[in-house]
Amino acid sequence: MRLVTYREASGDRPAVVVSSPGGDRLLDLSAVTPRVEQILADESLLAEVRAAVETTDAATLPALESVALAAPVTPGKILCLGYNYRGHVPDGVDPTANDPEWPDVFVKTSNTLAGPDDAVAIPPGATDVDYEGEVAIVIGRRAQRVSIDDALSHVGGYTILNDVSDRAWQRRQSQWALGKCSDGFAPLGPWVVTPDEVPDPQDLLVEVVRDGVVTVSQSTSTTIFSVAFVIHHLSQVLTLEPGDVVSTGTPQKLPEAQEAHRPLADGDAVTVRISRIGELTTRFVSPLTPSTTGTPQEVHA
Amino acid sequence: MRLVTYREASGDRPAVVVSSPGGDRLLDLSAVTPRVEQILADESLLAEVRAAVETTDAATLPALESVALAAPVTPGKILCLGYNYRGHVPDGVDPTANDPEWPDVFVKTSNTLAGPDDAVAIPPGATDVDYEGEVAIVIGRRAQRVSIDDALSHVGGYTILNDVSDRAWQRRQSQWALGKCSDGFAPLGPWVVTPDEVPDPQDLLVEVVRDGVVTVSQSTSTTIFSVAFVIHHLSQVLTLEPGDVVSTGTPQKLPEAQEAHRPLADGDAVTVRISRIGELTTRFVSPLTPSTTGTPQEVHA
Repeated sequence: MRLVTYREASGDRPAVVVSSPGGDRLLDLSAVTPRVEQILADESLLAEVRAAVETTDAATLPALESVALAAPVTPGKILCLGYNYRGHVPDGVDPTANDPEWPDVFVKTSNTLAGPDDAVAIPPGATDVDYEGEVAIVIGRRAQRVSIDDALSHVGGYTILNDVSDRAWQRRQSQWALGKCSDGFAPLGPWVVTPDEVPDPQDLLVEVVRDGVVTVSQSTSTTIFSVAFVIHHLSQVLTLEPGDVVSTGTPQKLPEAQEAHRPLADGDAVTVRISRIGELTTRFVSPLTPSTTGTPQEVHA
Repeated sequence: MRLVTYREASGDRPAVVVSSPGGDRLLDLSAVTPRVEQILADESLLAEVRAAVETTDAATLPALESVALAAPVTPGKILCLGYNYRGHVPDGVDPTANDPEWPDVFVKTSNTLAGPDDAVAIPPGATDVDYEGEVAIVIGRRAQRVSIDDALSHVGGYTILNDVSDRAWQRRQSQWALGKCSDGFAPLGPWVVTPDEVPDPQDLLVEVVRDGVVTVSQSTSTTIFSVAFVIHHLSQVLTLEPGDVVSTGTPQKLPEAQEAHRPLADGDAVTVRISRIGELTTRFVSPLTPSTTGTPQEVHA
């Protein structure tokens, strides 16, 4: 199932996407629960939604494209992995030779969350904005010190996160927060796909298309740390709650895309598409207001 | 004024602390607003609370110590500064010579938030837990690209944050998240002191007492980045919202405390005291359950 949150004048509402010959339709679930994360955490609600999908006449439902989508869940925390895909190595070289022992983990703050229909405004001081297309795990059941074997049972579903960064700010400190946490720098969606439709999260093709050119194309089979390991690992250190998002890192751009790369600018659009999950297209727009500049010296003068 | 959030069976409630000859008393504010952060953001509510304090007979109020305190606010994000205090340098050496150009900023996730009466449970895998006593800014008014001159007008008040870290996890990756984000690793409080009682945030003495020994003692006059600069700076990159917490970094431990340092363990207590703000004592306790161990190799085997 594909679960979404859509925007209504009265507030955001949960819904499930119903396939039909005429295109995707929208079945409102606000009579079941106010929030998608509650469905992910509850087997009986999931069964109720499945039954509703099966008994509904899709032809009577509104088209999915008639509504604006919000981020499918509102995570209490967004944890992201740095380097997690192995690069291509020549024959005879061990591809695991440069694997780090542990994943590098960073946080995106709540103000970064954006829906699939939201444009990302490039902040005035962000001079080197870049995209990263990633498989994002949405936690279904609370995870605290779970074993690797049990880890996947805590997954509520999968979605797509574009880990937008300003490389200029990211490079200025040891910690990446200011490069990662501008408003709207975490477009998420368009939906959460339940795990029954993603039988093997280590067998998904992650692709990014920019200006009609495929710039990233790599399978999750080449990740260093599996979804199961990541959940196990994070849950040793902190408690993962329903709706939390764990983004599993980005594959490197293809060599020709690295050479052709230029920072994202007003009017650009980036599509992340992942097999079995879907695709997320994000538009980038100019900032509306100029930055107020200042340096540390000014305040100490 | 000192604003607190206290725990009641029916849920958390806001209150203001009223000084009296017999000790601090508690004036409930739940008739005014459900949350302290709403008071900080609203001049008319602040005036209403001030009037209530002045017209109340403190003798009729319950003692502050009769209630359990929660964190005074529930921040949408907790941003923290790394290195922000200058060390002592010999005569003739410029103390600003090693100043970084920009603050190093990292995030503590929502699960780290703890109240002043909560003990911190040391996670099973955390072998090198340490404290950092810090002045924490609580945002009052939304701040988006504010000038340095205007920055302090966005401060709702000041409180104390103990930026608890597990140095072992912190050292394992380039990014510090796993060392900083265990459950309860951000004790906050005991109250938010409104800015009228903190006329100069660059003239506060920050001290930490562990086992009866002062291990940190340094004035905020020695910070590299002032409160005004930090708010200005962060607000260029992201939007700060009412209730958000920005912790301004920790002074280094005194040389003898560095030598005597050992990781925090079951039964330890750490008190952070800051002039004009108050003091926050945090107890550390053993974990209740053992860790489920695992290595990346296990899952790829």
